[in-house]
Amino acid sequence: MTNFKLTLEYDGSKFYGWQYQPKLRTVQGELERALEILLREKVHVNVAGRTDAGVHALGQVSNFKTNVEVDLQNILRSLNGILPHDVVVKHVEPVPVEFHARYDALSRQYCYVISRYPVAVGRGYAFFNKFPLDLEVMQQASRHLLGEHNFRAFCSSATDDPHYLSYVEALEWEDRGEKIVMRIRANRFLRSMVRIIVGSLLQVGRGKMASEEIAKILAAQNRIAAGVTAPPHGLFLEKVFYAPDHIAPRRKARFEEPVLMEEETYLE
Amino acid sequence: MTNFKLTLEYDGSKFYGWQYQPKLRTVQGELERALEILLREKVHVNVAGRTDAGVHALGQVSNFKTNVEVDLQNILRSLNGILPHDVVVKHVEPVPVEFHARYDALSRQYCYVISRYPVAVGRGYAFFNKFPLDLEVMQQASRHLLGEHNFRAFCSSATDDPHYLSYVEALEWEDRGEKIVMRIRANRFLRSMVRIIVGSLLQVGRGKMASEEIAKILAAQNRIAAGVTAPPHGLFLEKVFYAPDHIAPRRKARFEEPVLMEEETYLE
Repeated sequence: MTNFKLTLEYDGSKFYGWQYQPKLRTVQGELERALEILLREKVHVNVAGRTDAGVHALGQVSNFKTNVEVDLQNILRSLNGILPHDVVVKHVEPVPVEFHARYDALSRQYCYVISRYPVAVGRGYAFFNKFPLDLEVMQQASRHLLGEHNFRAFCSSATDDPHYLSYVEALEWEDRGEKIVMRIRANRFLRSMVRIIVGSLLQVGRGKMASEEIAKILAAQNRIAAGVTAPPHGLFLEKVFYAPDHIAPRRKARFEEPVLMEEETYLE
Repeated sequence: MTNFKLTLEYDGSKFYGWQYQPKLRTVQGELERALEILLREKVHVNVAGRTDAGVHALGQVSNFKTNVEVDLQNILRSLNGILPHDVVVKHVEPVPVEFHARYDALSRQYCYVISRYPVAVGRGYAFFNKFPLDLEVMQQASRHLLGEHNFRAFCSSATDDPHYLSYVEALEWEDRGEKIVMRIRANRFLRSMVRIIVGSLLQVGRGKMASEEIAKILAAQNRIAAGVTAPPHGLFLEKVFYAPDHIAPRRKARFEEPVLMEEETYLE
Protein backbone atom coordinates (compact mmCIF):
# COMPACT_ATOMS: atom_id res chain seq x y z
CA MET A 1 0.00 0.00 0.00
CA THR A 2 1.54 3.34 -1.04
CA ASN A 3 0.25 6.70 0.14
CA PHE A 4 0.78 9.42 -2.47
CA LYS A 5 0.78 13.14 -1.76
CA LEU A 6 -0.22 15.33 -4.73
CA THR A 7 0.35 19.07 -5.03
CA LEU A 8 -2.28 20.59 -7.30
CA GLU A 9 -2.94 23.79 -9.16
CA TYR A 10 -6.42 24.52 -10.46
CA ASP A 11 -8.45 27.30 -11.98
CA GLY A 12 -11.67 27.29 -9.95
CA SER A 13 -13.70 29.28 -12.51
CA LYS A 14 -15.51 26.28 -13.94
CA PHE A 15 -15.69 24.09 -10.84
CA TYR A 16 -18.40 23.79 -8.23
CA GLY A 17 -15.62 23.77 -5.67
CA TRP A 18 -13.40 20.94 -4.50
CA GLN A 19 -15.81 18.52 -2.91
CA TYR A 20 -17.40 15.73 -4.93
CA GLN A 21 -21.03 16.30 -5.82
CA PRO A 22 -22.91 13.91 -8.06
CA LYS A 23 -23.67 15.47 -11.48
CA LEU A 24 -21.65 18.63 -10.77
CA ARG A 25 -18.14 19.34 -12.02
CA THR A 26 -15.83 19.37 -8.99
CA VAL A 27 -12.04 19.11 -8.63
CA GLN A 28 -12.33 16.02 -6.43
CA GLY A 29 -14.67 14.45 -8.97
CA GLU A 30 -12.26 15.09 -11.87
CA LEU A 31 -9.25 13.91 -9.87
CA GLU A 32 -10.88 10.67 -8.70
CA ARG A 33 -12.13 10.01 -12.22
CA ALA A 34 -8.60 10.51 -13.64
CA LEU A 35 -7.07 8.29 -10.94
CA GLU A 36 -9.61 5.58 -11.66
CA ILE A 37 -8.65 5.64 -15.35
CA LEU A 38 -4.95 5.51 -14.46
CA LEU A 39 -5.06 2.90 -11.66
CA ARG A 40 -8.05 0.91 -12.86
CA GLU A 41 -9.48 0.99 -9.36
CA LYS A 42 -11.65 3.44 -7.48
CA VAL A 43 -9.72 5.58 -5.00
CA HIS A 44 -10.77 8.21 -2.51
CA VAL A 45 -8.70 11.39 -2.28
CA ASN A 46 -8.33 13.49 0.88
CA VAL A 47 -7.64 17.19 0.66
CA ALA A 48 -6.04 19.91 2.79
CA GLY A 49 -8.61 22.63 2.11
CA ARG A 50 -12.04 22.14 0.56
CA THR A 51 -12.18 25.25 -1.63
CA ASP A 52 -15.57 26.72 -2.57
CA ALA A 53 -16.97 27.15 -6.06
CA GLY A 54 -14.88 29.58 -8.09
CA VAL A 55 -11.89 29.59 -5.73
CA HIS A 56 -8.48 28.80 -7.28
CA ALA A 57 -5.54 26.83 -5.93
CA LEU A 58 -1.83 27.15 -6.61
CA GLY A 59 -0.65 24.64 -4.02
CA GLN A 60 -3.57 22.50 -2.91
CA VAL A 61 -2.52 19.21 -1.31
CA SER A 62 -4.33 15.91 -1.70
CA ASN A 63 -3.47 12.30 -0.89
CA PHE A 64 -4.67 8.84 -1.86
CA LYS A 65 -3.61 5.27 -1.17
CA THR A 66 -3.25 2.47 -3.66
CA ASN A 67 -1.86 -1.05 -3.98
CA VAL A 68 -1.34 -0.57 -7.70
CA GLU A 69 2.34 -0.32 -8.65
CA VAL A 70 3.02 2.99 -10.41
CA ASP A 71 6.14 5.09 -10.62
CA LEU A 72 6.11 8.77 -9.71
CA GLN A 73 6.94 10.22 -13.13
CA ASN A 74 4.28 8.04 -14.66
CA ILE A 75 1.61 9.30 -12.24
CA LEU A 76 2.56 12.92 -12.87
CA ARG A 77 2.56 12.73 -16.66
CA SER A 78 -0.38 10.41 -17.02
CA LEU A 79 -2.59 12.32 -14.61
CA ASN A 80 -1.83 15.60 -16.38
CA GLY A 81 -2.66 13.88 -19.64
CA ILE A 82 -5.99 12.59 -18.35
CA LEU A 83 -7.05 15.60 -16.25
CA PRO A 84 -8.89 18.53 -17.87
CA HIS A 85 -6.79 21.63 -18.65
CA ASP A 86 -7.93 23.54 -15.58
CA VAL A 87 -6.35 21.08 -13.11
CA VAL A 88 -2.61 20.37 -13.07
CA VAL A 89 -0.65 18.02 -10.82
CA LYS A 90 2.55 19.90 -9.98
CA HIS A 91 4.24 17.37 -7.73
CA VAL A 92 3.82 13.76 -6.55
CA GLU A 93 5.60 12.08 -3.68
CA PRO A 94 5.19 8.95 -1.57
CA VAL A 95 4.49 9.75 2.09
CA PRO A 96 4.05 7.73 5.30
CA VAL A 97 0.96 5.57 5.08
CA GLU A 98 -0.72 7.38 8.00
CA PHE A 99 -0.39 10.82 6.30
CA HIS A 100 -3.71 12.60 5.78
CA ALA A 101 -3.72 15.81 3.68
CA ARG A 102 -6.24 17.51 5.94
CA TYR A 103 -5.53 16.23 9.46
CA ASP A 104 -1.76 16.62 9.16
CA ALA A 105 -1.82 20.13 7.72
CA LEU A 106 -0.30 22.49 10.30
CA SER A 107 -1.48 25.61 8.51
CA ARG A 108 -2.83 26.89 5.22
CA GLN A 109 -1.99 30.06 3.35
CA TYR A 110 -4.47 31.86 1.12
CA CYS A 111 -4.05 35.02 -0.89
CA TYR A 112 -6.73 37.36 -2.16
CA VAL A 113 -6.04 39.57 -5.18
CA ILE A 114 -7.80 42.92 -5.65
CA SER A 115 -7.35 45.02 -8.76
CA ARG A 116 -7.54 48.80 -8.64
CA TYR A 117 -8.42 48.91 -12.35
CA PRO A 118 -10.77 46.91 -14.53
CA VAL A 119 -8.86 43.92 -15.92
CA ALA A 120 -9.37 42.08 -19.19
CA VAL A 121 -6.29 39.81 -19.27
CA GLY A 122 -6.52 37.78 -16.07
CA ARG A 123 -9.95 39.11 -15.08
CA GLY A 124 -10.79 35.67 -13.66
CA TYR A 125 -7.96 35.99 -11.15
CA ALA A 126 -8.60 39.32 -9.41
CA PHE A 127 -11.53 41.20 -7.91
CA PHE A 128 -11.92 44.71 -9.31
CA ASN A 129 -12.60 47.25 -6.56
CA LYS A 130 -13.20 50.76 -7.86
CA PHE A 131 -13.25 52.53 -4.47
CA PRO A 132 -10.10 54.16 -3.04
CA LEU A 133 -8.71 52.09 -0.17
CA ASP A 134 -6.65 53.10 2.85
CA LEU A 135 -4.29 50.14 3.08
CA GLU A 136 -2.68 51.33 6.31
CA VAL A 137 -5.99 51.36 8.13
CA MET A 138 -6.77 47.92 6.67
CA GLN A 139 -3.47 46.54 7.95
CA GLN A 140 -4.22 48.10 11.35
CA ALA A 141 -7.69 46.51 11.47
CA SER A 142 -6.17 43.19 10.39
CA ARG A 143 -4.14 43.04 13.61
CA HIS A 144 -7.35 42.44 15.60
CA LEU A 145 -7.69 39.12 13.79
CA LEU A 146 -4.22 37.79 14.62
CA GLY A 147 -3.93 34.99 17.17
CA GLU A 148 -6.59 32.53 18.30
CA HIS A 149 -10.19 33.72 18.16
CA ASN A 150 -13.70 32.46 17.73
CA PHE A 151 -14.37 33.36 14.08
CA ARG A 152 -18.10 32.69 14.10
CA ALA A 153 -18.70 36.26 12.82
CA PHE A 154 -16.44 35.58 9.83
CA CYS A 155 -17.96 32.30 8.81
CA SER A 156 -20.70 31.34 6.36
CA SER A 157 -23.91 30.15 7.99
CA ALA A 158 -23.78 27.15 5.64
CA THR A 159 -20.84 25.75 7.57
CA ASP A 160 -20.72 22.31 9.12
CA ASP A 161 -17.55 23.16 11.05
CA PRO A 162 -17.64 21.56 14.54
CA HIS A 163 -16.23 24.72 16.20
CA TYR A 164 -15.25 28.25 15.24
CA LEU A 165 -11.76 28.52 16.66
CA SER A 166 -8.93 29.48 14.36
CA TYR A 167 -5.40 30.65 15.02
CA VAL A 168 -4.44 33.33 12.49
CA GLU A 169 -0.65 33.31 12.25
CA ALA A 170 -0.23 36.12 9.73
CA LEU A 171 -2.38 38.56 7.78
CA GLU A 172 -0.64 41.02 5.46
CA TRP A 173 -1.63 43.52 2.80
CA GLU A 174 0.77 44.27 -0.01
CA ASP A 175 0.45 47.20 -2.38
CA ARG A 176 1.63 46.18 -5.85
CA GLY A 177 0.39 49.27 -7.67
CA GLU A 178 -2.37 48.06 -9.99
CA LYS A 179 -3.00 45.13 -7.65
CA ILE A 180 -3.43 44.75 -3.91
CA VAL A 181 -2.72 41.34 -2.39
CA MET A 182 -3.87 40.11 1.00
CA ARG A 183 -2.11 37.04 2.34
CA ILE A 184 -3.41 35.11 5.34
CA ARG A 185 -2.08 32.05 7.11
CA ALA A 186 -3.95 30.13 9.81
CA ASN A 187 -4.11 26.65 11.29
CA ARG A 188 -7.67 26.20 10.04
CA PHE A 189 -10.18 28.17 8.00
CA LEU A 190 -13.93 28.14 8.41
CA ARG A 191 -16.31 28.17 5.47
CA SER A 192 -15.94 31.50 3.51
CA MET A 193 -13.70 32.86 6.28
CA VAL A 194 -11.10 34.52 4.04
CA ARG A 195 -13.73 36.09 1.80
CA ILE A 196 -15.74 37.50 4.73
CA ILE A 197 -12.53 38.88 6.26
CA VAL A 198 -11.67 40.53 2.90
CA GLY A 199 -15.22 41.89 2.55
CA SER A 200 -15.06 43.36 6.07
CA LEU A 201 -11.59 44.85 5.69
CA LEU A 202 -12.65 46.42 2.39
CA GLN A 203 -15.39 48.21 4.33
CA VAL A 204 -12.71 49.49 6.70
CA GLY A 205 -10.44 50.52 3.82
CA ARG A 206 -13.27 52.48 2.20
CA GLY A 207 -13.93 54.32 5.45
CA LYS A 208 -17.34 52.67 5.88
CA MET A 209 -16.33 50.90 9.08
CA ALA A 210 -13.94 51.88 11.88
CA SER A 211 -10.87 49.74 12.42
CA GLU A 212 -11.96 48.86 15.98
CA GLU A 213 -15.31 47.63 14.64
CA ILE A 214 -13.45 44.49 13.50
CA ALA A 215 -12.51 43.67 17.12
CA LYS A 216 -16.09 44.27 18.27
CA ILE A 217 -17.63 42.10 15.55
CA LEU A 218 -15.14 39.35 16.38
CA ALA A 219 -15.95 39.53 20.10
CA ALA A 220 -19.71 39.71 19.55
CA GLN A 221 -19.54 36.77 17.08
CA ASN A 222 -21.89 38.79 14.93
CA ARG A 223 -21.93 37.60 11.28
CA ILE A 224 -24.52 40.23 10.33
CA ALA A 225 -22.22 43.11 11.34
CA ALA A 226 -19.28 41.75 9.30
CA GLY A 227 -18.85 42.67 5.63
CA VAL A 228 -20.25 40.83 2.64
CA THR A 229 -18.43 37.79 1.27
CA ALA A 230 -15.89 38.94 -1.33
CA PRO A 231 -16.26 37.14 -4.69
CA PRO A 232 -14.43 33.79 -5.09
CA HIS A 233 -12.39 34.59 -8.20
CA GLY A 234 -9.88 36.75 -6.27
CA LEU A 235 -9.07 33.91 -3.85
CA PHE A 236 -6.22 31.41 -4.13
CA LEU A 237 -5.22 28.58 -1.80
CA GLU A 238 -1.49 29.20 -2.08
CA LYS A 239 0.23 26.73 0.18
CA VAL A 240 -0.28 24.07 2.83
CA PHE A 241 2.31 23.55 5.54
CA TYR A 242 3.26 20.16 6.99
CA ALA A 243 5.83 18.92 9.48
CA PRO A 244 9.12 17.78 7.85
CA ASP A 245 8.10 14.13 8.29
CA HIS A 246 4.58 14.99 7.10
CA ILE A 247 2.86 13.86 10.30
CA ALA A 248 1.49 16.57 12.61
CA PRO A 249 2.84 16.32 16.18
CA ARG A 250 -0.70 16.10 17.64
CA ARG A 251 -1.46 13.26 15.23
CA LYS A 252 1.67 11.43 16.32
CA ALA A 253 0.42 11.66 19.89
CA ARG A 254 -2.81 10.09 18.77
CA PHE A 255 -1.08 7.13 17.20
CA GLU A 256 0.91 6.56 20.36
CA GLU A 257 -1.80 7.11 22.95
CA PRO A 258 -5.36 5.84 23.30
CA VAL A 259 -7.84 8.01 21.37
CA LEU A 260 -9.16 10.87 23.46
CA MET A 261 -12.64 12.34 23.23
CA GLU A 262 -11.49 15.86 22.37
CA GLU A 263 -9.77 14.58 19.26
CA GLU A 264 -13.07 13.55 17.79
CA THR A 265 -13.03 16.53 15.44
CA TYR A 266 -10.03 15.07 13.66
CA LEU A 267 -12.12 12.13 12.52
CA GLU A 268 -13.86 12.34 9.21
CA MET B 1 -14.49 67.25 -34.53
CA THR B 2 -12.41 65.57 -31.81
CA ASN B 3 -10.02 62.73 -32.47
CA PHE B 4 -9.77 60.35 -29.49
CA LYS B 5 -6.94 57.93 -28.87
CA LEU B 6 -7.89 54.85 -26.82
CA THR B 7 -5.47 52.46 -25.12
CA LEU B 8 -7.05 49.03 -24.80
CA GLU B 9 -6.49 45.77 -22.98
CA TYR B 10 -8.28 42.65 -24.14
CA ASP B 11 -8.32 38.93 -23.60
CA GLY B 12 -8.29 37.49 -27.12
CA SER B 13 -9.52 34.02 -26.08
CA LYS B 14 -13.10 34.55 -27.17
CA PHE B 15 -12.53 36.92 -30.09
CA TYR B 16 -12.11 36.17 -33.77
CA GLY B 17 -9.33 38.73 -33.72
CA TRP B 18 -9.47 42.50 -33.91
CA GLN B 19 -10.94 43.15 -37.33
CA TYR B 20 -14.68 43.52 -37.81
CA GLN B 21 -16.37 40.53 -39.41
CA PRO B 22 -20.12 40.35 -39.81
CA LYS B 23 -21.67 37.74 -37.47
CA LEU B 24 -18.36 37.01 -35.68
CA ARG B 25 -17.33 38.37 -32.29
CA THR B 26 -14.39 40.72 -32.87
CA VAL B 27 -12.81 43.44 -30.72
CA GLN B 28 -13.45 46.11 -33.35
CA GLY B 29 -17.06 44.97 -33.60
CA GLU B 30 -17.58 45.19 -29.82
CA LEU B 31 -15.80 48.55 -29.58
CA GLU B 32 -17.76 50.15 -32.43
CA ARG B 33 -21.01 48.78 -31.00
CA ALA B 34 -20.18 50.26 -27.57
CA LEU B 35 -19.21 53.62 -29.10
CA GLU B 36 -22.43 53.71 -31.08
CA ILE B 37 -24.43 53.18 -27.86
CA LEU B 38 -22.42 55.91 -26.10
CA LEU B 39 -22.29 58.52 -28.88
CA ARG B 40 -25.57 57.66 -30.60
CA GLU B 41 -23.79 57.74 -33.93
CA LYS B 42 -21.89 55.18 -35.93
CA VAL B 43 -18.12 55.62 -35.75
CA HIS B 44 -15.24 53.82 -37.38
CA VAL B 45 -12.23 52.95 -35.25
CA ASN B 46 -8.67 52.64 -36.55
CA VAL B 47 -6.18 50.38 -34.84
CA ALA B 48 -2.39 50.11 -34.47
CA GLY B 49 -2.14 46.34 -34.89
CA ARG B 50 -4.85 44.02 -36.19
CA THR B 51 -4.36 41.08 -33.83
CA ASP B 52 -5.39 37.59 -34.97
CA ALA B 53 -7.97 35.35 -33.33
CA GLY B 54 -6.91 34.36 -29.82
CA VAL B 55 -4.14 36.97 -29.51
CA HIS B 56 -4.29 39.24 -26.43
CA ALA B 57 -3.48 42.92 -26.02
CA LEU B 58 -2.23 44.88 -23.03
CA GLY B 59 -1.67 48.18 -24.80
CA GLN B 60 -3.47 48.16 -28.14
CA VAL B 61 -4.10 51.65 -29.54
CA SER B 62 -7.18 52.71 -31.43
CA ASN B 63 -8.62 56.07 -32.51
CA PHE B 64 -11.95 57.46 -33.64
CA LYS B 65 -13.34 60.87 -34.51
CA THR B 66 -16.62 62.37 -33.39
CA ASN B 67 -18.50 65.66 -33.30
CA VAL B 68 -20.44 64.55 -30.24
CA GLU B 69 -19.41 66.42 -27.09
CA VAL B 70 -18.18 63.99 -24.44
CA ASP B 71 -15.73 64.44 -21.64
CA LEU B 72 -12.79 62.06 -21.18
CA GLN B 73 -13.79 60.56 -17.82
CA ASN B 74 -17.24 59.96 -19.18
CA ILE B 75 -15.93 58.08 -22.22
CA LEU B 76 -13.65 55.91 -20.08
CA ARG B 77 -16.25 54.92 -17.49
CA SER B 78 -19.15 54.58 -19.88
CA LEU B 79 -17.25 52.52 -22.42
CA ASN B 80 -16.02 50.16 -19.71
CA GLY B 81 -19.59 49.88 -18.51
CA ILE B 82 -20.91 49.03 -21.97
CA LEU B 83 -18.03 46.85 -23.22
CA PRO B 84 -17.96 43.11 -22.42
CA HIS B 85 -15.64 42.04 -19.58
CA ASP B 86 -12.87 40.87 -21.90
CA VAL B 87 -12.18 44.36 -23.29
CA VAL B 88 -11.10 47.27 -21.09
CA VAL B 89 -10.34 50.86 -22.06
CA LYS B 90 -7.30 51.83 -19.98
CA HIS B 91 -6.76 55.36 -21.21
CA VAL B 92 -8.46 58.00 -23.37
CA GLU B 93 -6.94 61.19 -24.70
CA PRO B 94 -7.71 63.78 -27.38
CA VAL B 95 -5.09 63.85 -30.12
CA PRO B 96 -4.44 65.97 -33.25
CA VAL B 97 -7.22 65.46 -35.76
CA GLU B 98 -4.82 63.97 -38.35
CA PHE B 99 -3.62 61.23 -35.93
CA HIS B 100 -4.18 57.69 -37.20
CA ALA B 101 -3.50 54.78 -34.78
CA ARG B 102 -1.94 52.63 -37.49
CA TYR B 103 -0.18 55.04 -39.85
CA ASP B 104 1.39 57.10 -37.08
CA ALA B 105 2.68 54.12 -35.07
CA LEU B 106 6.49 54.19 -35.16
CA SER B 107 6.83 50.70 -33.75
CA ARG B 108 4.95 47.93 -31.96
CA GLN B 109 6.09 45.67 -29.17
CA TYR B 110 4.78 42.14 -28.71
CA CYS B 111 5.65 39.57 -26.10
CA TYR B 112 5.24 35.81 -26.27
CA VAL B 113 4.95 33.80 -23.06
CA ILE B 114 6.07 30.16 -22.89
CA SER B 115 5.54 28.02 -19.80
CA ARG B 116 7.98 25.26 -18.88
CA TYR B 117 5.25 23.52 -16.85
CA PRO B 118 1.60 22.78 -17.49
CA VAL B 119 -0.44 25.70 -16.18
CA ALA B 120 -3.97 25.72 -14.79
CA VAL B 121 -4.22 29.27 -13.38
CA GLY B 122 -3.52 31.51 -16.37
CA ARG B 123 -3.41 28.66 -18.90
CA GLY B 124 -5.03 31.00 -21.46
CA TYR B 125 -2.02 33.32 -21.26
CA ALA B 126 0.98 31.06 -21.89
CA PHE B 127 1.99 28.31 -24.29
CA PHE B 128 3.14 25.15 -22.51
CA ASN B 129 6.30 23.74 -24.09
CA LYS B 130 7.45 20.48 -22.55
CA PHE B 131 10.78 20.20 -24.38
CA PRO B 132 14.02 21.47 -22.82
CA LEU B 133 15.15 24.69 -24.52
CA ASP B 134 18.60 26.19 -24.97
CA LEU B 135 17.82 29.86 -24.47
CA GLU B 136 21.33 31.01 -25.29
CA VAL B 137 21.21 29.41 -28.72
CA MET B 138 17.76 30.90 -29.24
CA GLN B 139 19.03 34.38 -28.38
CA GLN B 140 21.94 33.82 -30.76
CA ALA B 141 19.64 32.76 -33.59
CA SER B 142 17.42 35.76 -32.86
CA ARG B 143 20.24 38.13 -33.81
CA HIS B 144 19.86 37.09 -37.46
CA LEU B 145 16.43 38.69 -37.43
CA LEU B 146 17.53 42.10 -36.14
CA GLY B 147 17.52 45.02 -38.55
CA GLU B 148 15.64 45.41 -41.82
CA HIS B 149 14.85 42.22 -43.72
CA ASN B 150 12.34 40.75 -46.10
CA PHE B 151 10.25 38.59 -43.73
CA ARG B 152 8.34 36.69 -46.40
CA ALA B 153 9.53 33.39 -44.84
CA PHE B 154 8.06 34.44 -41.50
CA CYS B 155 4.68 35.49 -42.74
CA SER B 156 1.37 33.68 -43.13
CA SER B 157 0.37 32.97 -46.73
CA ALA B 158 -3.03 34.47 -45.90
CA THR B 159 -1.48 37.92 -45.73
CA ASP B 160 -2.60 40.90 -47.76
CA ASP B 161 0.49 42.88 -46.78
CA PRO B 162 1.73 44.99 -49.71
CA HIS B 163 5.39 44.16 -49.01
CA TYR B 164 7.42 41.99 -46.64
CA LEU B 165 9.92 44.47 -45.26
CA SER B 166 10.15 44.90 -41.52
CA TYR B 167 12.75 46.53 -39.32
CA VAL B 168 13.19 44.49 -36.13
CA GLU B 169 14.56 46.87 -33.49
CA ALA B 170 14.86 44.39 -30.63
CA LEU B 171 14.28 40.70 -29.94
CA GLU B 172 15.03 39.38 -26.47
CA TRP B 173 14.48 36.18 -24.53
CA GLU B 174 14.07 36.35 -20.77
CA ASP B 175 14.27 33.36 -18.46
CA ARG B 176 11.83 33.80 -15.59
CA GLY B 177 12.10 30.28 -14.21
CA GLU B 178 8.70 28.68 -14.77
CA LYS B 179 8.10 31.05 -17.69
CA ILE B 180 10.14 32.17 -20.67
CA VAL B 181 9.25 35.48 -22.29
CA MET B 182 10.21 36.64 -25.77
CA ARG B 183 9.85 40.33 -26.46
CA ILE B 184 10.06 41.76 -29.97
CA ARG B 185 9.81 45.32 -31.25
CA ALA B 186 9.59 46.28 -34.92
CA ASN B 187 8.28 49.10 -37.08
CA ARG B 188 5.74 46.76 -38.68
CA PHE B 189 4.64 43.15 -38.33
CA LEU B 190 3.36 40.89 -41.07
CA ARG B 191 0.51 38.44 -40.58
CA SER B 192 1.50 35.76 -37.98
CA MET B 193 5.10 37.05 -38.04
CA VAL B 194 5.74 36.88 -34.28
CA ARG B 195 4.19 33.42 -33.97
CA ILE B 196 6.21 32.00 -36.91
CA ILE B 197 9.40 33.53 -35.45
CA VAL B 198 8.59 31.91 -32.07
CA GLY B 199 7.80 28.57 -33.74
CA SER B 200 11.10 28.67 -35.64
CA LEU B 201 13.22 29.72 -32.66
CA LEU B 202 11.62 26.95 -30.59
CA GLN B 203 12.94 24.50 -33.20
CA VAL B 204 16.38 26.02 -32.71
CA GLY B 205 16.06 25.88 -28.91
CA ARG B 206 15.12 22.19 -29.05
CA GLY B 207 18.15 21.45 -31.19
CA LYS B 208 16.01 20.54 -34.20
CA MET B 209 17.37 23.41 -36.28
CA ALA B 210 20.80 25.07 -36.39
CA SER B 211 21.03 28.71 -35.39
CA GLU B 212 22.36 29.70 -38.85
CA GLU B 213 19.34 28.03 -40.47
CA ILE B 214 17.35 31.12 -39.40
CA ALA B 215 19.59 33.37 -41.54
CA LYS B 216 19.26 30.99 -44.51
CA ILE B 217 15.47 30.75 -44.27
CA LEU B 218 15.28 34.54 -44.04
CA ALA B 219 17.52 35.00 -47.11
CA ALA B 220 15.75 32.30 -49.14
CA GLN B 221 12.31 33.76 -48.17
CA ASN B 222 11.25 30.18 -47.62
CA ARG B 223 8.09 29.91 -45.49
CA ILE B 224 8.10 26.11 -45.74
CA ALA B 225 11.51 25.84 -44.07
CA ALA B 226 10.50 28.06 -41.14
CA GLY B 227 8.85 26.60 -38.03
CA VAL B 228 5.14 26.12 -37.42
CA THR B 229 3.05 29.03 -36.19
CA ALA B 230 3.10 29.07 -32.36
CA PRO B 231 -0.39 29.12 -30.82
CA PRO B 232 -2.06 32.54 -30.36
CA HIS B 233 -2.78 32.36 -26.62
CA GLY B 234 0.88 33.01 -25.68
CA LEU B 235 0.97 36.26 -27.66
CA PHE B 236 0.34 39.78 -26.35
CA LEU B 237 0.46 43.11 -28.15
CA GLU B 238 2.19 45.00 -25.33
CA LYS B 239 2.78 48.51 -26.50
CA VAL B 240 2.61 50.86 -29.47
CA PHE B 241 5.11 53.69 -29.82
CA TYR B 242 4.28 57.14 -31.22
CA ALA B 243 6.15 60.42 -31.63
CA PRO B 244 5.68 62.83 -28.70
CA ASP B 245 3.23 64.93 -30.77
CA HIS B 246 1.57 61.68 -31.99
CA ILE B 247 2.25 62.33 -35.67
CA ALA B 248 4.92 60.24 -37.36
CA PRO B 249 7.66 62.35 -39.05
CA ARG B 250 7.04 60.65 -42.42
CA ARG B 251 3.34 61.45 -42.11
CA LYS B 252 4.15 65.10 -41.40
CA ALA B 253 6.11 65.19 -44.65
CA ARG B 254 3.06 63.87 -46.42
CA PHE B 255 0.88 66.62 -45.09
CA GLU B 256 3.38 69.21 -46.25
CA GLU B 257 4.22 67.79 -49.68
CA PRO B 258 2.10 66.58 -52.56
CA VAL B 259 1.09 62.90 -52.21
CA LEU B 260 3.68 60.58 -53.75
CA MET B 261 2.96 57.27 -55.38
CA GLU B 262 5.14 55.20 -53.01
CA GLU B 263 3.06 56.32 -50.06
CA GLU B 264 0.05 54.55 -51.41
CA THR B 265 0.47 51.79 -48.84
CA TYR B 266 -0.40 54.26 -46.12
CA LEU B 267 -3.88 54.63 -47.53
CA GLU B 268 -6.59 52.39 -46.24
